[in-house]
Amino acid sequence: MPLGEAMFTQRAIRRFRPDRIPVADLELIIEAAVKAPNGGNRQLTRFLVVDDPALMEKFGPIYREAWWAKRREMGETSVEDMSDLYRSATRLADEMDAVPCVVFALALDNGAASSVVPAVQNLMLAARALGIGTVPTTLHSSVMSQFRALFGVPEDVAFHLCIPMGYPRGNFGPTTRQPTSETTFHGRWGTPPPWA
Amino acid sequence: MPLGEAMFTQRAIRRFRPDRIPVADLELIIEAAVKAPNGGNRQLTRFLVVDDPALMEKFGPIYREAWWAKRREMGETSVEDMSDLYRSATRLADEMDAVPCVVFALALDNGAASSVVPAVQNLMLAARALGIGTVPTTLHSSVMSQFRALFGVPEDVAFHLCIPMGYPRGNFGPTTRQPTSETTFHGRWGTPPPWA
Repeated sequence: MPLGEAMFTQRAIRRFRPDRIPVADLELIIEAAVKAPNGGNRQLTRFLVVDDPALMEKFGPIYREAWWAKRREMGETSVEDMSDLYRSATRLADEMDAVPCVVFALALDNGAASSVVPAVQNLMLAARALGIGTVPTTLHSSVMSQFRALFGVPEDVAFHLCIPMGYPRGNFGPTTRQPTSETTFHGRWGTPPPWA
Repeated sequence: MPLGEAMFTQRAIRRFRPDRIPVADLELIIEAAVKAPNGGNRQLTRFLVVDDPALMEKFGPIYREAWWAKRREMGETSVEDMSDLYRSATRLADEMDAVPCVVFALALDNGAASSVVPAVQNLMLAARALGIGTVPTTLHSSVMSQFRALFGVPEDVAFHLCIPMGYPRGNFGPTTRQPTSETTFHGRWGTPPPWA
């Protein structure tokens, strides 16, 4: 797939078919991920792939607890309070037990997001090119000890992102974004770019 | 360019030819960047593009000060202490005044790295496809007030990454990475993946 097509048709996928992702595809996706730049090529990023349905059934309640902890922090206590996007994300939380695969992006020595997240974007683009949907999500700090206990993740390993993956119900892209002429500045904060 | 070629031949470029990057290419690169996923589609990322040589001459000393502040923190006080990679990065710091373009990745409301850095990776991949080299770098906190003053960046706008860009002296990729069979776990921290 051309790079442009992958980037311009990537969108958050939150509804998945139950089909498993072949191991060869998982491997290719991770191989692509680790090619992303990282600080000093220290390669602190670690991926934890979970596709065992029994483990996903244990993770589902943790994810839902994290989701609602975050929502309560934002002052939202019911789906009626929410935007369409958050309703869709709530449905993902409800269905997490049955998601075919989740990849956790972690870092040794509490490595920084700036060295981990480029790899995650490679991972999501490679998945897109294989017809596999993803959505980057976080986990509220209140569930971190449960998360570490379930998957044996040491305390000095930083959690960065939780990426549910699977073949989509529904379609990829396009997405809606503000015009770059309004979100990009040139030479000084507030000065529009030459293409504005 | 195929997605795989872009991802598997992206490498940090730290030596640039002086040629300017055409505005149409800058626009395409930024358009690709903003298509990356971001939390709640709140679109807090802002890019500041600097390609005015007079501004780069003012930024160069700030970048060098930040580079050496970081090195002193790491206990390195001369290039002799450094790995090849850091020597190359030191040369970039020395040459920063003449780099043709720098993009700063910023975020309104101090938005999180997990919503900004995917866009930066898109930016770097799109640049790669156009033959333009990049390297993600950070700025030490000790120069933040100088950085904000030079470019008029408000206090509540988070700085995430500084990305020098230009046509490379030298070649793209490939890069060296640890085997994914050692950096990826399956089901539990420490358990090798099925392709190991």
